[in-house]
Amino acid sequence: MYHVIIIGGGPAGLQAAVYIGRAGKKVLIIDKGEDEKILAADIQNLFGFEDGILGRNLMVKGIKQAQKFGAEIKTEEVTNIKKESKKFIVTSTSGNYESEYLILSTGKSLKPSGIKNEIQFIGKGISYCVACDGYFYKEKKIGIIGHGNFAASEALELTNYTKQIIIFTNGKEVNMNPELMKEIEQNNIQINKEKIVELEGKDFVEKLILENSEEPVEGIFVAMGSATSIDFARSLGVEIEGNFIKVDEKMKTNVDKAYAAGDCRGPPFQLSKALGEAAIAALEVIGKKVQY
Amino acid sequence: MYHVIIIGGGPAGLQAAVYIGRAGKKVLIIDKGEDEKILAADIQNLFGFEDGILGRNLMVKGIKQAQKFGAEIKTEEVTNIKKESKKFIVTSTSGNYESEYLILSTGKSLKPSGIKNEIQFIGKGISYCVACDGYFYKEKKIGIIGHGNFAASEALELTNYTKQIIIFTNGKEVNMNPELMKEIEQNNIQINKEKIVELEGKDFVEKLILENSEEPVEGIFVAMGSATSIDFARSLGVEIEGNFIKVDEKMKTNVDKAYAAGDCRGPPFQLSKALGEAAIAALEVIGKKVQY
Repeated sequence: MYHVIIIGGGPAGLQAAVYIGRAGKKVLIIDKGEDEKILAADIQNLFGFEDGILGRNLMVKGIKQAQKFGAEIKTEEVTNIKKESKKFIVTSTSGNYESEYLILSTGKSLKPSGIKNEIQFIGKGISYCVACDGYFYKEKKIGIIGHGNFAASEALELTNYTKQIIIFTNGKEVNMNPELMKEIEQNNIQINKEKIVELEGKDFVEKLILENSEEPVEGIFVAMGSATSIDFARSLGVEIEGNFIKVDEKMKTNVDKAYAAGDCRGPPFQLSKALGEAAIAALEVIGKKVQY
Repeated sequence: MYHVIIIGGGPAGLQAAVYIGRAGKKVLIIDKGEDEKILAADIQNLFGFEDGILGRNLMVKGIKQAQKFGAEIKTEEVTNIKKESKKFIVTSTSGNYESEYLILSTGKSLKPSGIKNEIQFIGKGISYCVACDGYFYKEKKIGIIGHGNFAASEALELTNYTKQIIIFTNGKEVNMNPELMKEIEQNNIQINKEKIVELEGKDFVEKLILENSEEPVEGIFVAMGSATSIDFARSLGVEIEGNFIKVDEKMKTNVDKAYAAGDCRGPPFQLSKALGEAAIAALEVIGKKVQY
């Protein structure tokens, strides 16, 4: 019986485990395995890493740190979670685990575009977050792949870095709210509705091959909207709002002793925001009574 | 004219400056100078620093990082802030600065106990945060200096690490709510109401000299409650709740274009929570339109 089981071993899960382990509580992280998007990231905006750090290296540090304070980490896929009287029973591909508390930090699966060659160019011109990576593309010509409000807001944020922006809807109709559409026009952001055949480049992405043309770019942000891995949260009876887990200011869900932290509970999708939420959830789970 | 002026150059202020600088916006941090409590801290619970890091070293990294992205940092004391039509005018001991946006990240001044020799033992047995430092005092005999709910909650959290806890009220009457008092009794936490004359020790704090006795300890947490440096926030018309700046979930105060992040907007007083709030405030100030 664990004090806490944490579902998801990204930064939020590891940060929570550091707190919980340090407090002497038995804690298990179950993680389904490598996430290319964080591993390939070049992280420049996390306080304390003045030269930036590769996602891969940061994750190694976080894992060592959680383990140092006693956290167990298992790489297994969770298939079910249920609550039985006073405990959670988490079923994975390898067995059952029990705990008094649960922290959901499953992150979000940023929807890949599914376009040919996308995956091989991750970290080589393909990004998923303008707030994280826009800085690397100053004054460059950039494509945004998407057709909804998320694509529009990513494009508008990118105007802080460059004026050469084209949104590629990949054959889809534009589905942006009028306020955003107006700003897209005011900022002279072009919209190309052709279907995308594939991405091309040597070491780095260089162009989009479209049905009837091709368009050179120096970088691409995929902004297809986000799908969260919250299906088992739903089956546990955890309240969902939009695509995200609903929590109060202490990161508590509507299910007693179940908490959520990080991207799975909503935007902005930033490392430091995930860490902050994880610290709050962890302190609650440890039993800190914040009274001032 | 700056895009943003940040009042307070602790971790929250620096994290916000990293985001804002990277977005190409002109940003100024005004900080009143060294804060012994963070500089002396041995930080073990911040994700990514698996061997821990001294507060002093972490601050150096954060300052370099903010400067790398163009942030200006001035060591001056702010004496007044006012809003005039569309800009903030910040007056410091050295001049006036103007900005469109304001971020308040003044931290909180943890009340020192004022007891003789306290300051010299900071980091040498004197701590101000159980969640941060309790781990260093496993199975040790610890004094808590305080008499209110904050002292009680710190003592209760410390029970995760040790059972030998004495609360020293330093001559004050106990002023804890009944729920906390009950838990204090259930956990056999003693309360000593004698006045404290001074702290003694060689390299590390070793005992409290009381009016009529003395008590050996292996560490002391000062938990006198917290006083915030929010006086000028108040004069700007920023709404205060308790001792903290009131914000919405996007860290916005009731004053248009004024935000707050970190300890000055309330507990828990944790580095990662401060960073998370700073990222949220910074993204708002940059003009990110979070829409998903």
